[in-house]
Amino acid sequence: MSKNICFIDGLEGILKYREIDINQLVELPYDAISYLLIQGELPADQELAEYSARLHGEREINREVMDVIRMCKLDIDAMEALRTIVSFISQFDPDLDDSSPEGNMRKAIRLIAKIPTIVAAYYRVANGKDPVPPDASLSHGANFLYMLKGRKPSELEAEVMEKDFILSAEHELNASTFSSRVTASTLSDLYSAVVSGLCTLKGPLHGGARAEVMTMLEEIGNPGNAEKYVLEKIGNRDKIMGFGHRVYKTYDPRGTIFKQLSRQLAEAKGDMHWYDTAEAIENTVVRELVEKKGKPIYPNVDFYSGVIYKYMDIPPQLATAIFAIGRVSGWIAHCFDQYEKKKIIRPRAFMLDEC
Amino acid sequence: MSKNICFIDGLEGILKYREIDINQLVELPYDAISYLLIQGELPADQELAEYSARLHGEREINREVMDVIRMCKLDIDAMEALRTIVSFISQFDPDLDDSSPEGNMRKAIRLIAKIPTIVAAYYRVANGKDPVPPDASLSHGANFLYMLKGRKPSELEAEVMEKDFILSAEHELNASTFSSRVTASTLSDLYSAVVSGLCTLKGPLHGGARAEVMTMLEEIGNPGNAEKYVLEKIGNRDKIMGFGHRVYKTYDPRGTIFKQLSRQLAEAKGDMHWYDTAEAIENTVVRELVEKKGKPIYPNVDFYSGVIYKYMDIPPQLATAIFAIGRVSGWIAHCFDQYEKKKIIRPRAFMLDEC
Repeated sequence: MSKNICFIDGLEGILKYREIDINQLVELPYDAISYLLIQGELPADQELAEYSARLHGEREINREVMDVIRMCKLDIDAMEALRTIVSFISQFDPDLDDSSPEGNMRKAIRLIAKIPTIVAAYYRVANGKDPVPPDASLSHGANFLYMLKGRKPSELEAEVMEKDFILSAEHELNASTFSSRVTASTLSDLYSAVVSGLCTLKGPLHGGARAEVMTMLEEIGNPGNAEKYVLEKIGNRDKIMGFGHRVYKTYDPRGTIFKQLSRQLAEAKGDMHWYDTAEAIENTVVRELVEKKGKPIYPNVDFYSGVIYKYMDIPPQLATAIFAIGRVSGWIAHCFDQYEKKKIIRPRAFMLDEC
Repeated sequence: MSKNICFIDGLEGILKYREIDINQLVELPYDAISYLLIQGELPADQELAEYSARLHGEREINREVMDVIRMCKLDIDAMEALRTIVSFISQFDPDLDDSSPEGNMRKAIRLIAKIPTIVAAYYRVANGKDPVPPDASLSHGANFLYMLKGRKPSELEAEVMEKDFILSAEHELNASTFSSRVTASTLSDLYSAVVSGLCTLKGPLHGGARAEVMTMLEEIGNPGNAEKYVLEKIGNRDKIMGFGHRVYKTYDPRGTIFKQLSRQLAEAKGDMHWYDTAEAIENTVVRELVEKKGKPIYPNVDFYSGVIYKYMDIPPQLATAIFAIGRVSGWIAHCFDQYEKKKIIRPRAFMLDEC
């Protein structure tokens, strides 16, 4: 594995996948980013065409999988259903026992291709609607929105969804990626490693923040209420959802891109309401915590992405599962790196406090 | 959490759960060890009676769970089925969203109680037999053997199964326990944390060794072939299954207990064949690697337990799942400890090499 999967400079606010800056990557299709993360290099045109064709051709799920989706209760967390279904589908993968790089690549493609289908199918079934089969002619982002809503998205919506998947795709050793690596370190199969990532992402301290940002936006309701809400939270020493990060001590570069995208969406829809509310929250937090108190508390990746989901009518209960759709390429890139190391991750107890 | 969940002295070969030596713990029922690990103290008689009654009363699985067990293909890894079914049953837990210590305790009891039932039911269905419902009057070990084989085990078999679960119950931050902790660190629910442990235990470098010991015993066939087999392996610098450990640099205390138990079983059955084969392997490894080369390569926990499974007619393909039955109490003890810390495990990349 030649290049670092991920590079983060938390002080300067720089994020790179495989040594390429995120601002450059976000202009490419998700399929190219997925290839980059897993293979280590950006694909040439022909390689990208082949990779996309393989990914788009593996999106369908079979009847048995649909049966188990229908056996999931309607009111459970979407991540709970996704965890079960991804675990269940491994038995249909003809390459399950082939742990060669080629066999693992075929499993990787099936996982990346089918997870969006599972999320959309579960959501529609849980809401009393028929699942919409995937459309292999659409991009990763456009196809997901199509399967979710049953109608083709606008060009801008499709583009925003692609960029959302790209910005969620990888972030070094966050907890879910780390747990995928720990699982892969015992040479467990790729499905187990991805399920392990899903189990960890499900936690409210990790994948849950985006949905909470959406809830907060609704609670605040309009830009005029934002300042009072934030001041109260700060007064009570409560956490404000979507702000601050363990690694970034300045603007999260993903947050900056999400902010631009949410503004574009707001303008295209002729409705600045949620954008203005979010900006009023941001301005108050930055004034009170950064400027007055010198604390490095800036909008993180979950803040303006929550705004985007409001504009795209994406239900909060799917926010974490959609994060997983993007992140699975990063998990798999780390698993492949871990498989090459052939070394079990087995810290001693005293190391726990250092993580 | 007052006392250390686990203490290992790898140089002296000492293992304690909650500050009590493993040689003392192995004389108690599994239920008491499960209580000790999770609650931090050994139960008083009345506490143990109550805990056992709750555990034994939660063993049954419902019809929907049996339906998904029947939807698992017959030839898959038992761990693959267990991973899916444990993930699926969370939706039936009325306390799923109650993350209070009491709610988590109720989930813990259901998980510990139902996992043996799932393993036995899957195995019987996969082999064309009807599942055997649990018997609440039996101990954890006796009930599992009863559900697996459809007949009550002998007293010695039941005792050996109990001790096997106890010796497998906990071992500090091995990879599966660590992955459960990483999952719990995001405040993900207990089912997700246990599924994460299962995903990691499934890997051949972790939970797979016991089955490989059984395969090796069959390959060698009889005591007279052992020396030649071991010398060839050493000559080719191949790993000998069931020997050596990342932490222990002397006899693994669990291995010593398993050796005694396997001898007892062999004598009770009047068939020393597998015991003698194993001892011949051990003698050759110790002579060649420890005595001649000074390498600390001793039988580990998987070696004589593999011998025991041969005597108890436990199929190798269940070895890892049976390990999980014992280990789940340890995973849960660590998760409860992690929940109290309320701190996400998020190492930076450079820390990976230290684990």
